[in-house]
Amino acid sequence: MVENSSDDILQDAQTVDIAFLVVGDPFGATTHTDLVLRARASHIPVSIIPNASIMSAIGVTGLQLYNFGQTVSMVFFTETWKPTSFYNRIRENRKIGLHTLLLLDIKVKEASLENLVRGRRIYDPPRYMTVGQCAMQMLEVENIMTEKGEGGVYSKDSLAVGVARVGGATEKIVCGTLEQLCLADSSLGKPLHSLILLGQRSHELEYEFLKIFAIDPVEWDRIWKKDYQRKN
Amino acid sequence: MVENSSDDILQDAQTVDIAFLVVGDPFGATTHTDLVLRARASHIPVSIIPNASIMSAIGVTGLQLYNFGQTVSMVFFTETWKPTSFYNRIRENRKIGLHTLLLLDIKVKEASLENLVRGRRIYDPPRYMTVGQCAMQMLEVENIMTEKGEGGVYSKDSLAVGVARVGGATEKIVCGTLEQLCLADSSLGKPLHSLILLGQRSHELEYEFLKIFAIDPVEWDRIWKKDYQRKN
Repeated sequence: MVENSSDDILQDAQTVDIAFLVVGDPFGATTHTDLVLRARASHIPVSIIPNASIMSAIGVTGLQLYNFGQTVSMVFFTETWKPTSFYNRIRENRKIGLHTLLLLDIKVKEASLENLVRGRRIYDPPRYMTVGQCAMQMLEVENIMTEKGEGGVYSKDSLAVGVARVGGATEKIVCGTLEQLCLADSSLGKPLHSLILLGQRSHELEYEFLKIFAIDPVEWDRIWKKDYQRKN
Repeated sequence: MVENSSDDILQDAQTVDIAFLVVGDPFGATTHTDLVLRARASHIPVSIIPNASIMSAIGVTGLQLYNFGQTVSMVFFTETWKPTSFYNRIRENRKIGLHTLLLLDIKVKEASLENLVRGRRIYDPPRYMTVGQCAMQMLEVENIMTEKGEGGVYSKDSLAVGVARVGGATEKIVCGTLEQLCLADSSLGKPLHSLILLGQRSHELEYEFLKIFAIDPVEWDRIWKKDYQRKN
């Protein structure tokens, strides 16, 4: 709505107070920066109230916020559209040992092509990407990149953390290899999900905090000691 | 207090509910991870409520959270202690074009060496690092590193953003070169301050948002176009 109707939102703001509520922090998304710029152009004073965001609340995993690199987004792949730009950003983060937070796609109020063409206001049921889907897409992209000779950023044995409903009463954390996380949706439960790919600069305290959430503690320990412990 | 007295905090938690309030998000600091681990070891159930944090609220500058690398801390230098580890982290971020958020040191309830030795509970007045001090220390470290042949991560002409009291009613943003920010404390006002060093992956929308806060708009434009615009 804010992408298409910012003029409607701002229309009466010259004379009355308008409040615009968002989920998470107002500036997690660039659309809201744009809304402020439009308000500024019309000389409408704006005041902004920060809020908790997945980008800081993710610290609930015990992973230290100082050790996160750039955040990336994962979109729903289709047969013909599999954007791989997230992969290079993860490469950049991993190269310097940093964790990567992946924010997972949401499709709400999307219409099918047929309904769009016919101008019908019928929307598809909402879809929320799960940790399982995200992990599968990541392994798919790793294969694509490896075939091109540009792979090796992570593998099915890379350690990752899946989270669901962070900050809510039913918050859930599980960790394991990317391969294990492909099958973790049943234990994570309902949306919203996010995923973190571990960086190799991982700290002992992070290990201590996370290990009780491991899908397979023995395997988690083995890979941690082999590939992560004091590697950076 | 939480560093030294976590046992006191947890002491009665077996029988009564204990609430522990923090400024910002509970997991911005590793001490709080440690507190949760200690509670876990004593089988004390913990539930955590996320909060707004400078690490996401910094989006109020118009800089996109996706374009931030790892966050670093800047401590007060002394004559004999000038830790430079932050410099390499900024180097890593800048190499891939990312912004760096610098969190500035706070000294609260610190005693002088003399008072400590005599066991007197007399504390020095609280000190909060300012953007000006931080920018000066950064330039000092750049000189030290350059003399060692390891410099060149930034210079007095690098663009940066200083913020004060983010999220508060008197929030303030100014941007300019590091050299200009050395003298920006009077316009930023009281603590708390933070500083962002710009990455070269900067987006046009970030430029658009920030330019009204420039100390010297002509100089800001000149350097932006020369060193930042479409450089990554």
